[in-house]
Amino acid sequence: FIFMVLQQIQFTDQKQEYNRPPTKTVRSMSQSSTDSFTSVHSDSSEDESSPRDKHQKSAKGLSDFCIKNINQADFGRKEIEMAEQEMPALMNLRKRAGGEKPLAGAKVVGCTHITAQTAVLIETLAALGAQCHWAACNIFSTQNAVAAALVKAGISVFAWRGESEDEFWWCIDQCVAAETWQPNIILDDGGDLTHWIYNKYPDLFKKLKGVVEESVTGVYRLYQLSKAGRLSVPAMNVNDSVTKQKFDNLYFCKESILEGLKRTTDIMFGGRHVLVCGYGEVGKGCCAALKALGAVVYVTEVDPICALQACMDGFRVIKMSDILRQVDVVITCTGNKNVVMREHLDKMKSGCIVCNMGQSTSEIDMAGLRTSDLKWVHVRPQVDHVIWPDGKRIVLLAEGRLLNLSCSTVPSFVLSITAATQAMALIELYNAPEGRYKKDVYLLPKKMDEYVASLHLPLFDAHLTELTDDQAKYMGISKHGPFKHNHYRQSQTFLSLTHKHTHTHICIILK
Amino acid sequence: FIFMVLQQIQFTDQKQEYNRPPTKTVRSMSQSSTDSFTSVHSDSSEDESSPRDKHQKSAKGLSDFCIKNINQADFGRKEIEMAEQEMPALMNLRKRAGGEKPLAGAKVVGCTHITAQTAVLIETLAALGAQCHWAACNIFSTQNAVAAALVKAGISVFAWRGESEDEFWWCIDQCVAAETWQPNIILDDGGDLTHWIYNKYPDLFKKLKGVVEESVTGVYRLYQLSKAGRLSVPAMNVNDSVTKQKFDNLYFCKESILEGLKRTTDIMFGGRHVLVCGYGEVGKGCCAALKALGAVVYVTEVDPICALQACMDGFRVIKMSDILRQVDVVITCTGNKNVVMREHLDKMKSGCIVCNMGQSTSEIDMAGLRTSDLKWVHVRPQVDHVIWPDGKRIVLLAEGRLLNLSCSTVPSFVLSITAATQAMALIELYNAPEGRYKKDVYLLPKKMDEYVASLHLPLFDAHLTELTDDQAKYMGISKHGPFKHNHYRQSQTFLSLTHKHTHTHICIILK
Amino acid sequence: FIFMVLQQIQFTDQKQEYNRPPTKTVRSMSQSSTDSFTSVHSDSSEDESSPRDKHQKSAKGLSDFCIKNINQADFGRKEIEMAEQEMPALMNLRKRAGGEKPLAGAKVVGCTHITAQTAVLIETLAALGAQCHWAACNIFSTQNAVAAALVKAGISVFAWRGESEDEFWWCIDQCVAAETWQPNIILDDGGDLTHWIYNKYPDLFKKLKGVVEESVTGVYRLYQLSKAGRLSVPAMNVNDSVTKQKFDNLYFCKESILEGLKRTTDIMFGGRHVLVCGYGEVGKGCCAALKALGAVVYVTEVDPICALQACMDGFRVIKMSDILRQVDVVITCTGNKNVVMREHLDKMKSGCIVCNMGQSTSEIDMAGLRTSDLKWVHVRPQVDHVIWPDGKRIVLLAEGRLLNLSCSTVPSFVLSITAATQAMALIELYNAPEGRYKKDVYLLPKKMDEYVASLHLPLFDAHLTELTDDQAKYMGISKHGPFKHNHYRQSQTFLSLTHKHTHTHICIILK
Amino acid sequence: FIFMVLQQIQFTDQKQEYNRPPTKTVRSMSQSSTDSFTSVHSDSSEDESSPRDKHQKSAKGLSDFCIKNINQADFGRKEIEMAEQEMPALMNLRKRAGGEKPLAGAKVVGCTHITAQTAVLIETLAALGAQCHWAACNIFSTQNAVAAALVKAGISVFAWRGESEDEFWWCIDQCVAAETWQPNIILDDGGDLTHWIYNKYPDLFKKLKGVVEESVTGVYRLYQLSKAGRLSVPAMNVNDSVTKQKFDNLYFCKESILEGLKRTTDIMFGGRHVLVCGYGEVGKGCCAALKALGAVVYVTEVDPICALQACMDGFRVIKMSDILRQVDVVITCTGNKNVVMREHLDKMKSGCIVCNMGQSTSEIDMAGLRTSDLKWVHVRPQVDHVIWPDGKRIVLLAEGRLLNLSCSTVPSFVLSITAATQAMALIELYNAPEGRYKKDVYLLPKKMDEYVASLHLPLFDAHLTELTDDQAKYMGISKHGPFKHNHYRQSQTFLSLTHKHTHTHICIILK
Repeated sequence: FIFMVLQQIQFTDQKQEYNRPPTKTVRSMSQSSTDSFTSVHSDSSEDESSPRDKHQKSAKGLSDFCIKNINQADFGRKEIEMAEQEMPALMNLRKRAGGEKPLAGAKVVGCTHITAQTAVLIETLAALGAQCHWAACNIFSTQNAVAAALVKAGISVFAWRGESEDEFWWCIDQCVAAETWQPNIILDDGGDLTHWIYNKYPDLFKKLKGVVEESVTGVYRLYQLSKAGRLSVPAMNVNDSVTKQKFDNLYFCKESILEGLKRTTDIMFGGRHVLVCGYGEVGKGCCAALKALGAVVYVTEVDPICALQACMDGFRVIKMSDILRQVDVVITCTGNKNVVMREHLDKMKSGCIVCNMGQSTSEIDMAGLRTSDLKWVHVRPQVDHVIWPDGKRIVLLAEGRLLNLSCSTVPSFVLSITAATQAMALIELYNAPEGRYKKDVYLLPKKMDEYVASLHLPLFDAHLTELTDDQAKYMGISKHGPFKHNHYRQSQTFLSLTHKHTHTHICIILK
Repeated sequence: FIFMVLQQIQFTDQKQEYNRPPTKTVRSMSQSSTDSFTSVHSDSSEDESSPRDKHQKSAKGLSDFCIKNINQADFGRKEIEMAEQEMPALMNLRKRAGGEKPLAGAKVVGCTHITAQTAVLIETLAALGAQCHWAACNIFSTQNAVAAALVKAGISVFAWRGESEDEFWWCIDQCVAAETWQPNIILDDGGDLTHWIYNKYPDLFKKLKGVVEESVTGVYRLYQLSKAGRLSVPAMNVNDSVTKQKFDNLYFCKESILEGLKRTTDIMFGGRHVLVCGYGEVGKGCCAALKALGAVVYVTEVDPICALQACMDGFRVIKMSDILRQVDVVITCTGNKNVVMREHLDKMKSGCIVCNMGQSTSEIDMAGLRTSDLKWVHVRPQVDHVIWPDGKRIVLLAEGRLLNLSCSTVPSFVLSITAATQAMALIELYNAPEGRYKKDVYLLPKKMDEYVASLHLPLFDAHLTELTDDQAKYMGISKHGPFKHNHYRQSQTFLSLTHKHTHTHICIILK
Repeated sequence: FIFMVLQQIQFTDQKQEYNRPPTKTVRSMSQSSTDSFTSVHSDSSEDESSPRDKHQKSAKGLSDFCIKNINQADFGRKEIEMAEQEMPALMNLRKRAGGEKPLAGAKVVGCTHITAQTAVLIETLAALGAQCHWAACNIFSTQNAVAAALVKAGISVFAWRGESEDEFWWCIDQCVAAETWQPNIILDDGGDLTHWIYNKYPDLFKKLKGVVEESVTGVYRLYQLSKAGRLSVPAMNVNDSVTKQKFDNLYFCKESILEGLKRTTDIMFGGRHVLVCGYGEVGKGCCAALKALGAVVYVTEVDPICALQACMDGFRVIKMSDILRQVDVVITCTGNKNVVMREHLDKMKSGCIVCNMGQSTSEIDMAGLRTSDLKWVHVRPQVDHVIWPDGKRIVLLAEGRLLNLSCSTVPSFVLSITAATQAMALIELYNAPEGRYKKDVYLLPKKMDEYVASLHLPLFDAHLTELTDDQAKYMGISKHGPFKHNHYRQSQTFLSLTHKHTHTHICIILK
Repeated sequence: FIFMVLQQIQFTDQKQEYNRPPTKTVRSMSQSSTDSFTSVHSDSSEDESSPRDKHQKSAKGLSDFCIKNINQADFGRKEIEMAEQEMPALMNLRKRAGGEKPLAGAKVVGCTHITAQTAVLIETLAALGAQCHWAACNIFSTQNAVAAALVKAGISVFAWRGESEDEFWWCIDQCVAAETWQPNIILDDGGDLTHWIYNKYPDLFKKLKGVVEESVTGVYRLYQLSKAGRLSVPAMNVNDSVTKQKFDNLYFCKESILEGLKRTTDIMFGGRHVLVCGYGEVGKGCCAALKALGAVVYVTEVDPICALQACMDGFRVIKMSDILRQVDVVITCTGNKNVVMREHLDKMKSGCIVCNMGQSTSEIDMAGLRTSDLKWVHVRPQVDHVIWPDGKRIVLLAEGRLLNLSCSTVPSFVLSITAATQAMALIELYNAPEGRYKKDVYLLPKKMDEYVASLHLPLFDAHLTELTDDQAKYMGISKHGPFKHNHYRQSQTFLSLTHKHTHTHICIILK
């Protein structure tokens, strides 16, 4: 049974969090803006009863929703408007569609984080003709005010911050099980919604136009279904689209690491010694930003290819134990577990800041810090001083959870790229003529990746050059794209050796 | 009368604010951390009555103080401890002094912003033997919790956030006019305290060991006094010390501009077009940080020398009107007034962010924005959308006041440099043998600048090289510094022409 | 017939040049150092007779070689020693092999540029036990002194600078057609050697252990053979190895563009406006270096994905015609033809520098510049001033050929990565057990890519971190690599749509 | 006697070389372009006889000159035209003068390096009406072809490369001692010309309009004269002008260090460990360029203020002995002597590159390298491998002389700033009304600095903003500049303490 299998598998994507309640943690989108700016409004006034127990009705008389507090709608609307400024591609999509409604008749059921940025996506789908029912993919990440604004605008949202696991599944079920409304297409982030329908409403599932999935986890689950011959509808893998791979993690982290550290610690970056564990996309983003502000950055790596890149980009690649005593900040970006252990923490100098930009909560050894010999002092939201018996203090951020979970804002623009890709995938699947897509998992056509990219260019006042007929012919491509050959990509698949085989072999020859 | 004169004079230092109540605004030090993290604690619980009307007593029985709320002391202490981590020079001074008390017997009356960073300075003076009475140099900048922590630690503080002008002068007077305690040295920021004593307690003034002054304004007032032959004690001009000039504005702005923009607007920097008005130290800091994060930065300048630097550093120097329509952000850093006028704002594109990192509140034409044809929507703390009749919206930050007043944290380390210089100046003045200093304004000896710099090196694990005897002789300097020749500096004063003279001349020759 | 087919095909790799004599041009490896430093020694003393007509014998009595002048061997040896300093991976390979000779019995016939860097490769193969016969893959790129040093060291080289086409094929044939020596493995760069043997010595070809091919062109020809079912031996595609793709073009261009421009024009980079046409790997390298030195860089692009990257990296993406009048330098990096045409050149301002870092000689419209209305003045080697009737002058570098062909040195280290990969591929093919490789084209196993990368780390004093057993298990990989999952790569191949299909579709929906 | 005194004095300016023949070495201006491009033409064909012994006549019949070979004029003219492209300020000066001849009647005798860049200056003076006689300030730095071009254009040049000391003074004397021509103003670089006239032709000296001097050395000699009351004419100190101080060393070194290293060693910068000794302007320029290309840069410093700047700019400040074993390159930029000694060289790893960007030839211990235990191998022009008994090799560049003396081109633009300042100073002195300048040393008026800067802005297409009347009044300055207050500068001179005094004092208080 597929859920069982998943428990044992680990993924290497560094930003995407597990989406399994109740343990799941999140990249919280603009969580942080909520924290810093809206907490007074939203949190203090909230009662403790579950929204599920209340009878709710919107001003328009709509009642198929369940959220925390409809009165926060105005504040949520402002947040959405802020996000719209930075998400030009979706706004362009609305504009370019003009009167046309490419999603007319589409009944989209969605399960994502519910934030200002996803609200822009959802309202774009609506503007293109879709009806939308929406649940949260994470029990903690819903911005209640945004949910309220969506409901006020006519979207059926079932989500609030701090759902129990029971409530999580109840919300998902409410989105699907309306008597008078049946979804015909899925937009999922993590696969929970997809598998809920697949398992509980198999007939409904078979009639779907398709599934659009963004996360590593969800995509993996779809490939498993497909391999097992049980995927009965086409699915779009948005996670591996070029736009997501080339832009998301790198720029997301580059843009948020500085603010995350500043806000919590007032640190000056110039000349400070920072250790970044891992030089994948997350590590590359963090290193680039920190170096740019004058920090002296060290890198640990296990993969020699990434290590060589770090070297040539100007970073010292070093073992953690060789540098720990002199660094001012340690940032984990590995996607692995047990990266910073108690023995490492014991060696750090007093005042060292420790935080996590990687995947899971297990990169830093929290258990090792919660021992009776250490004293914790909570000095600011998301900031604890952990004090050793000799007075040494480690500055721990966000209790080892993702730093940009709650300590920084989110660049809406970066999220815009993925959101626009999701919208395109939905349009493509919904409008594809019979037979174009089989019961399989597809990547978004390269052409559409390019289209998504082009939607973002006006924000930068960027102007593309057009190939002449002659030049296009010379390159062997169409004037209108795609602009890279297929064989470029495909040539990477001739690999037919298993690693183990090769490994042994090299060892013999070269010691 | 000196106050009259000052009304008419304008200064070019870009960070330093006027310190004249009640209109004065401030670089608020860690104001922002208060805003984001402590507002719930500190503000909501505060009553509206003036502290002046209350009878206050500290736990130790001390009663010569007047602050908002002694109960906030614990929170303030944590903020001070956070600042201590980043202010190693002052902590080193305490340590190096060992048992010695170079300020034993010193009775310091101070008038500065009262923040976590100045608290570290004040407590350092106390640790070195001084008794301290302290008032605020600005009616808005006092961190009440920090003031409480200082009082709890035995410092006589008379200050709270939101003083009236009357209360401002009352607080200053309370610091001086104690029956049993008379100050013998002044630490001032802006000159208000100095002139209060000079005018109201002339006998006390004459007996002072001296005055240490940090601000452009205050230094200017001292030189005026000196010119007029009325300065009856020696004064130290800290503002023009090398350490302050070379580090303060540049790094302060470089470290805070990004966070200020991120926090308020969630903007992504990569590829965004930013116009920075002015390429002085403030502008240089902003430009460097923004370029480092991938922004496309344009500069306006009036001074050809600064303009040439901007060019060679890779920035386009351009007239505002030629670029306004395409920029995403406009930042004023000129120290001048009327830089961004309504006519400029009319030309900007919708969504353009406008903010001020310069000196005064008059860089951006606020009056032009407060007209009846424009609609203001307050979307977040410190963020207003100003909406034009055609729907265009300008994102205005901090109502045109200093962006790092309330929208970012402050790098304590940068402030540490100036604070350490103040402490050194105080020690020097207090301990100087009779006759070393006349009744004049002095710069801190270069040797002391170097000492202050060296106090900050351990934070970076930096190790100086020592000159050999041979090398020192070859360079004609002492092995122990100062390391730059005096004639280097002095040679810059042979200039004896007036500009006007020259100007006419050039015009004739070269058109 | 395969040669015919190739005439019509164009490739997009930007650095690799066509290798078809006699029109072929080259990335010349350390061509430039020869130009600037050795021309006096080597060229002036050379006679004009063809080496083919002379009877040559080395000091050791060896006579199976044909080069220009054996007397230059000492100078060539110094150049090789310089290169060895920067090619640690190959030197490490020699060392790690210790006494073992993994290439014992290997008879390698090679056809590459003959430069100091390839000499290090060839001598490494020899040190590992191989016998080597070598020809040049380009009629202009042989460093005669290096060839001499190789011969003196016992390698059979048939190559000199300035071969005729006839001589080119004669040299190749001499390498193969020795009476007493038959190659059993090929190392090729461009496919000329491979196809010569394939066509002329089919029996020999079938007995080969395999072919290692580095170039885009050569790899393409191998895939054609394979598709046609005519590839009778296994082949290794080195061109698409991770190490080559991730390091070669980007760092090669980043490291050479500055010197190429400086040497020829004495230009100061700070503040100069540079237009880079194309933001592929070559363009990215050029842009990064120029921006780093303070230039204001503009980019033209046809591909929206690359354009978006350029934007987010801080470059203005613009049409050429909109910026031409104000730029100081234009650099073509597209791999396409007719990028800078006469009409563009007509619009440039006087003094504008025009050069090519891209693939072919056709990026700049040389024909348009060789018209009778324009006057050419040759001002320095590789520098012509082309003068318009009105006196405007364009500074043309290297007559539109690759700038780093003759105007800059080459970073040996970057070439080291590819050379080490070639050596590994040769070792792998030669030692693979029967049956591991079929008659097909293979990518180097990922494990070996990682091994090559690791060989380069000691130069940077870089130290890898080792995974714990626990961590390796958590990530689902071996402790010893490969460190990235296969499914990551393979998931990119589900794409099954044709572009045209999709293209039409999008156009309908979105205009 | 003044020459005696000078022998004992050392200066700290890092670029300016001593100008005392015959030991003097030079920043050679475009020396290097000569080396790489013109050596074949110019050097090989040159005879060994002294030009002094030949009877020379130019095409125009002019005979008051003495150069190497008038036939090289065409090549020299091309070099001058190349330089003109990068020296817009001087070209603008010519243009702006229009018909006017502000130097009509001026008889300028000059003594500078004779290079393409100074030729542009000399011809500008001529275009503005001056008659010019010119000698070289350095026996090695004359570009013979440029001298020829100048003569062909009608300038009386007495200079060639490789003068003996005797010839050096003979040339200077020839410039002055013409029967029919007497100079009335001096342009000097180093003071040799000035003192020759002062001593040998005292009557002529007294009648001069004045002296313009560029070098540290020359300026120092002028101040000495002035102090001694023997300066009988006004002098302009160009060395301490703002434009020279802020632009010259920093950008000069930033622009030339990369090419200097590349050309000689083919080194790849990415990830390489570089030790820069000294963080003055020269060191700052080197560090910035190297870091920008991805090198890992370490700094040694003796001055804590410079050290703190290095830290905050992101460089590790370290003692040489702590890092020597791991660096790939060592660059001296201190202006001091004995910086890299044999004991340091003994510790470096094999392959380490050692070079000097600082002032003198004594930064690197050449004597220590010329011992019998070490073997020297000359591998390229300006490159020696020094080999230790155990096989270790140090790569020594330019035998410890200035790297940009012979290993890189020179950015003409940077030199343009100083050259334009010299021209302005000459115009000012020549045209000043009686009495404006006394017999003293003057700095160029700030207004003129700004004018020189503004002359360079068009090259960058930079556009200045103009102050409104209102803004100018608010700032207290003229709309047309100068844009910085005088008191800013002057306030730095109140310092009245001696260091020693202070030093002792601090030591007592703070240990």
